[in-house]
Amino acid sequence: MKRVAILGSTGSVGRNTLEVVDAFRDELTVVGLAAGSNIDLLAQQVAQYRPELVSVREARDVERLRSLVHGQVDIVHGAAGACAVASLGSADVVIAAIVGAAGIPPVHAALQAGKRVGIANKEVLVAAGDVMTKTARANGGEILPVDSEHNAVHQALRCGDRKEVLRIILTASGGPFLKRDLSTFGEVTVEAALAHPTWRMGNKISIDSATMMNKGLEVIEAHHLFAMPPDRIDILIHPQSIVHSMVEYVDGSIMAQLSTTDMKFPIQYALLYPDRVTAPFARLDLAKIRTLEFLPVDPHRFPAVELAYQACRSGGSMPAVLNAANEIAVERFLAGELSFTSIVEIVTRVLEKHSRDVSVISSVDDALHWDRWARNEARGIDVALTRKP
Amino acid sequence: MKRVAILGSTGSVGRNTLEVVDAFRDELTVVGLAAGSNIDLLAQQVAQYRPELVSVREARDVERLRSLVHGQVDIVHGAAGACAVASLGSADVVIAAIVGAAGIPPVHAALQAGKRVGIANKEVLVAAGDVMTKTARANGGEILPVDSEHNAVHQALRCGDRKEVLRIILTASGGPFLKRDLSTFGEVTVEAALAHPTWRMGNKISIDSATMMNKGLEVIEAHHLFAMPPDRIDILIHPQSIVHSMVEYVDGSIMAQLSTTDMKFPIQYALLYPDRVTAPFARLDLAKIRTLEFLPVDPHRFPAVELAYQACRSGGSMPAVLNAANEIAVERFLAGELSFTSIVEIVTRVLEKHSRDVSVISSVDDALHWDRWARNEARGIDVALTRKP
Repeated sequence: MKRVAILGSTGSVGRNTLEVVDAFRDELTVVGLAAGSNIDLLAQQVAQYRPELVSVREARDVERLRSLVHGQVDIVHGAAGACAVASLGSADVVIAAIVGAAGIPPVHAALQAGKRVGIANKEVLVAAGDVMTKTARANGGEILPVDSEHNAVHQALRCGDRKEVLRIILTASGGPFLKRDLSTFGEVTVEAALAHPTWRMGNKISIDSATMMNKGLEVIEAHHLFAMPPDRIDILIHPQSIVHSMVEYVDGSIMAQLSTTDMKFPIQYALLYPDRVTAPFARLDLAKIRTLEFLPVDPHRFPAVELAYQACRSGGSMPAVLNAANEIAVERFLAGELSFTSIVEIVTRVLEKHSRDVSVISSVDDALHWDRWARNEARGIDVALTRKP
Repeated sequence: MKRVAILGSTGSVGRNTLEVVDAFRDELTVVGLAAGSNIDLLAQQVAQYRPELVSVREARDVERLRSLVHGQVDIVHGAAGACAVASLGSADVVIAAIVGAAGIPPVHAALQAGKRVGIANKEVLVAAGDVMTKTARANGGEILPVDSEHNAVHQALRCGDRKEVLRIILTASGGPFLKRDLSTFGEVTVEAALAHPTWRMGNKISIDSATMMNKGLEVIEAHHLFAMPPDRIDILIHPQSIVHSMVEYVDGSIMAQLSTTDMKFPIQYALLYPDRVTAPFARLDLAKIRTLEFLPVDPHRFPAVELAYQACRSGGSMPAVLNAANEIAVERFLAGELSFTSIVEIVTRVLEKHSRDVSVISSVDDALHWDRWARNEARGIDVALTRKP
């Protein structure tokens, strides 16, 4: 029986993680939950899974949650609370699905405690990858990717030695705008950008998928997860999202991992690793899918990708700045404050401003410092300067 | 440095094996060659690779070869000669590419001598799979598949434990008649049947690919290679022949192996296993291929497939009879003696006749006995009874 702590239990990945736990009652049990402000759902989860420890974001929600669950559980709050859940002594595996930079301290706490951490929050590795991999090594912690792409790479890497890998090929759906007329990108609505063709995901990640910044962040994530230089990580558009990613070996063999587009598969893999256990989720029927397509990435359509490669090559604080600036730009786009094409414009301008000050990230505080700086910068950029619909 | 013996060095697989040796001069060297009647080519190979021992099929060719190579090499002949090359003390790995039942005794000899054998001749496992796997186990021999399909499965099986495998999915190009009007199958010419769309192979295997008996034989081969019951080996038509086969794990992950359609890749894998070494052969560019298709097998179009499944389920001598009857039927089709559709008719009738006498194959002699019996039967069936163009 593996004991699971979930950071971000009320979000999309968190709820899917609990569905996986439901499907493997003999193998998995929940010992800790951390969530943000969806207290009603969190209360239901506490009643159903009876964890030892629960954390909420705001102090004011502690009493509210306590009244809903009749005090059968320890309730903590804030960053310290999330870190307590992440490093819970009884947890064997931690699923880290708190969106954005808020996920950085608890993942660090989990790795310091020597936990196996299934990372669904790619920003943690983008902003503080060196710190996280170093912390894992120093404390016997382990990072397993829950992103379908990196999870596929993790599986394909089992077919050979690490030094036999030529390159990683991340697949990308291309998002909702793969074929949209480029001249109309300025008029993209929030609704259109949220309408992902193959995956059902949270809002932030859906917008990142529309700009393909998502894939750029995944390149940086793969760089840290698999100790691979960015020039040996390629992206291939694959609109069906069936081949989740590939590894090309030096001998010319490409190993690919395929499944239906259901995030429960990579979550299950991370929770039960190294065992594979019969899954009750809908299986892939390739004869029904019939066609898998692969296309190169058009850099004019998706300028965010090259921005991310540049940040990865620069290294140091640059990826943290990229990530934070993007998070704010997406937030502002979702709030209707700016146009779709302005997202990349804002990120570009913040990166340019930071290019003179790139520095080493040697602690979580370093990462959070540049994260805050980039957020402020991205908030301050006058939207009048950007193209509007 | 690995020392290689090649059984069938002048055939398609043999020549490709020598190209792989050429590409890896620091890793591979040739110590033994066995061939049939292409003495001129064999003499060139002997001059170039300087093996210790060479075998020819016919006694009369020994002197001819000796005169061509000026006596710098030991020359033997016949089945015993091929077995001597197969069990050569200095050989680390044997590539077995003698087409048909003639390949059975030397592969057995190699496994008895505890060799690693790369099997390209699927008939060896089809006709005598139980004997071969038992002999390998008893003598520390090892069978590595050189067929692209089984080689792909071998690679994909590295991603999990054997008990975690749900099924093997062999891909099939569908051959040249995937879309041909079924009502015209009686008029198929030898030239049309030899025109394989994606692979360049020998005549026998090209016809087997057109009937898809090839894939049926591969099901039986996979059954022996991977100890998998036939109902857990599926076939999927994949006209591009890029995904060479797949393994589906119980947890819903499908692992696929991809490369260009060049048999040097699986040969290289078998020769250098478990290492992967940088290949100088043309690499796969999926963005250029663009589309991969997958279709179910139509049993009306390819009745040979179900015949092979039936033979595999029956077990014992049935697969040996299937293989031998098919070999003769293909030979007769290639000689212009009968129509394309008669191939399966002849095999069906020989299998029906054998169904009362199915027996255990516990030795190479048992396999060869039923092989001879089925050949005679298949030769004796009156072609007037079959449909002709």
